Amino acid sequence: METAFPATRRTQVGIIGAGPAGLLLSQLLHLQGITSVVLENRSRQRVESRQRAGLLEQNTVNLLREAEAADRLDREGLVHEGVILSYNGRRHRIALSELTDGECVTIYAQTEVVKDLITKRLEAGGELLFEAEATRIEGLETDSPRIHFTYQGHAHILECDFVAGCDGFHGISRAAIPAELQKVYDKTYPYSWLGIIAQVPPSTDELIYAFHERGFALHSMRSAERSRLYVQCGVDDTLEDWPDERIWAELHARLGTSGWTLQEGPILEKSITPMRSFVSEPMQYHRLFLAGDAAHIVPPTGGKGLNMAVADTKSLFDALRAWYQAGDASLLQGYSAACMRRVWRVQEFSNYMTEMLHLLPGKAAFDQHLQQSRFDLLTTCPAASKVIAENYVGIAARRASEAVAEQVPGEIL
Amino acid sequence: METAFPATRRTQVGIIGAGPAGLLLSQLLHLQGITSVVLENRSRQRVESRQRAGLLEQNTVNLLREAEAADRLDREGLVHEGVILSYNGRRHRIALSELTDGECVTIYAQTEVVKDLITKRLEAGGELLFEAEATRIEGLETDSPRIHFTYQGHAHILECDFVAGCDGFHGISRAAIPAELQKVYDKTYPYSWLGIIAQVPPSTDELIYAFHERGFALHSMRSAERSRLYVQCGVDDTLEDWPDERIWAELHARLGTSGWTLQEGPILEKSITPMRSFVSEPMQYHRLFLAGDAAHIVPPTGGKGLNMAVADTKSLFDALRAWYQAGDASLLQGYSAACMRRVWRVQEFSNYMTEMLHLLPGKAAFDQHLQQSRFDLLTTCPAASKVIAENYVGIAARRASEAVAEQVPGEIL
Repeated sequence: METAFPATRRTQVGIIGAGPAGLLLSQLLHLQGITSVVLENRSRQRVESRQRAGLLEQNTVNLLREAEAADRLDREGLVHEGVILSYNGRRHRIALSELTDGECVTIYAQTEVVKDLITKRLEAGGELLFEAEATRIEGLETDSPRIHFTYQGHAHILECDFVAGCDGFHGISRAAIPAELQKVYDKTYPYSWLGIIAQVPPSTDELIYAFHERGFALHSMRSAERSRLYVQCGVDDTLEDWPDERIWAELHARLGTSGWTLQEGPILEKSITPMRSFVSEPMQYHRLFLAGDAAHIVPPTGGKGLNMAVADTKSLFDALRAWYQAGDASLLQGYSAACMRRVWRVQEFSNYMTEMLHLLPGKAAFDQHLQQSRFDLLTTCPAASKVIAENYVGIAARRASEAVAEQVPGEIL
Repeated sequence: METAFPATRRTQVGIIGAGPAGLLLSQLLHLQGITSVVLENRSRQRVESRQRAGLLEQNTVNLLREAEAADRLDREGLVHEGVILSYNGRRHRIALSELTDGECVTIYAQTEVVKDLITKRLEAGGELLFEAEATRIEGLETDSPRIHFTYQGHAHILECDFVAGCDGFHGISRAAIPAELQKVYDKTYPYSWLGIIAQVPPSTDELIYAFHERGFALHSMRSAERSRLYVQCGVDDTLEDWPDERIWAELHARLGTSGWTLQEGPILEKSITPMRSFVSEPMQYHRLFLAGDAAHIVPPTGGKGLNMAVADTKSLFDALRAWYQAGDASLLQGYSAACMRRVWRVQEFSNYMTEMLHLLPGKAAFDQHLQQSRFDLLTTCPAASKVIAENYVGIAARRASEAVAEQVPGEIL
């Protein structure tokens, strides 16, 4: 698709960012005959190689199917009907399907979702520009906003009806909302995750989230051949602090329980992820709509980042379709308010999982006991496990966004 | 009963404190033919007039019936099948009975429970000494500990097999456990409760726990004629800061919702209660067993203080009965460990309710949103309401103490 691009181009929806949100929105709009152009400042290779999350809610799987981009996901995704929580070696399974009338999660890497969507868009002749750097958005208050971008060494303008800001936390979209209209909420956690991908079949059929007095650990997987594993580490730690032997020793200690052995294998990738909660509100400004990390970040515990981006995309798609197909602006007007209830539900759940499962050095002894008591409750109170299950598979967020929003809708049009 | 008392007296169980725990233990033991003497440093009139909690779990009602001290409770207690939570005027009912297979709570003041138990003990010739001040406990490591006390101007000794420390947070019992063996956990909250009793029929059939941007409020009741109401106030506030008009104005604002009116009436009593969580572990030392506030304090949100004291009493009674009737020391040995799981469950619930419902000045905006999100979850997720219901009626604590305790039993005998 990377042919010479005109200096000024017009489309219906200008999408900044070729992550899951931007790509999926473009694909869903395409299937409804609504045109879009996606601008991505990185290369295709870079976009397709970034290792991110890999846990898809049923909502997310359903939407990828609706987008006709789930063939490989349906073949290769690992469907999980339960998840295991561990507290100092004592394990408790949350029976997701049983507790939610059959909903489950699917293990399939975000990077594979991105590859599938890119393939799908390009096959359909979609306009997807890599190494196209959006530099400025103007005219958001008009009915024809313009995205300035550089591409193949030249300056270009993309004129559109709406701008979808899917360009992540560091993108330019959020910054296009006047600061005096934005409320920003955030929280940083005094620990990080060291993650590895190891060439070894997973030692478990279901994910294991472990609190341990040495710190949090997570046993996940990428495929039947590759394990994805994490250990809580210090915020100032570097990869040099974590030679392979230390990583495996901590994983054995933190995930271990009697009668179970963690299999080791060659470590293919190693990285450190900081833990942060972030929300910017509103998620819209006149003709600009933010989706995904551009508007909010969750700590990775619970695997909600990708799913929340996809949920935003669904809301934005529904709103744009109502506008183009029925001239109905109400969903666009209520976009941010509807998203926000879901965003806070997911933030609360991610925070709950994070604080229940991580070791917080210096935490008051009283609060340590409350932390253990929250875990113990899961083992004696099925309703408490059901609350986790409904949040984990995405039911709770869906219900939250369906509930009547009480916030005042953002201004638009 | 206050006849001349011998200098040294022997009984099977020496009980310090004539609050609900001490009185109920004495009565339950009596029905099994096990003798006890209760030493209370305050006057009967004082003990019978202290205004405390007034919410009885089903567990508590059942035990008072087993103690044959529930006749008036069964006649006068107000059975509540639900409880109302309010968030800035938006109300959500937790259907206790529906969510728990028919369990409910009974509104009946602690002070009435105490009166009923005193009457019952004295009718049966129970030895219940008021204004008898326990000053020292010795010989706890032997099979015949001695409680030194002063009574009617004279020094006395009560020799017994076991000492039940039911003398509250400020009593001498907890201090008899060597400090090096005790672990203490506590938390103070930066707000207090201003409570009133008003001569006016309750404006609600069920309790209303309200979060409001002005602070917490609670509408409870003492009887069909008297309302019990609370507002969150500052920790340094005094009664002078709260003239009647201010109290009513805050109650109207914080409890209000459209279509509902709070009825005012003459204020009969006014007091300020600090908010604290406290746990001392273990709850036993050789021949000494603590029950109730002597071992733990909860903030009043959720009404658990009295119920936890009664639950301790039940555990201690079962353990003493097994010892006297079957020579079985195992329940005595495991007393503290069995109590502790229940104690932490109740502490966690009381903390959860307290933090969800109170205004914390200076709280980060992010955390304020999480607080609201926890309330919103209740309105969209029946399982979350069920978790509250099971904790509120006492099922969760019962299950926790029935779960296999993993702690090492305390040393005894």
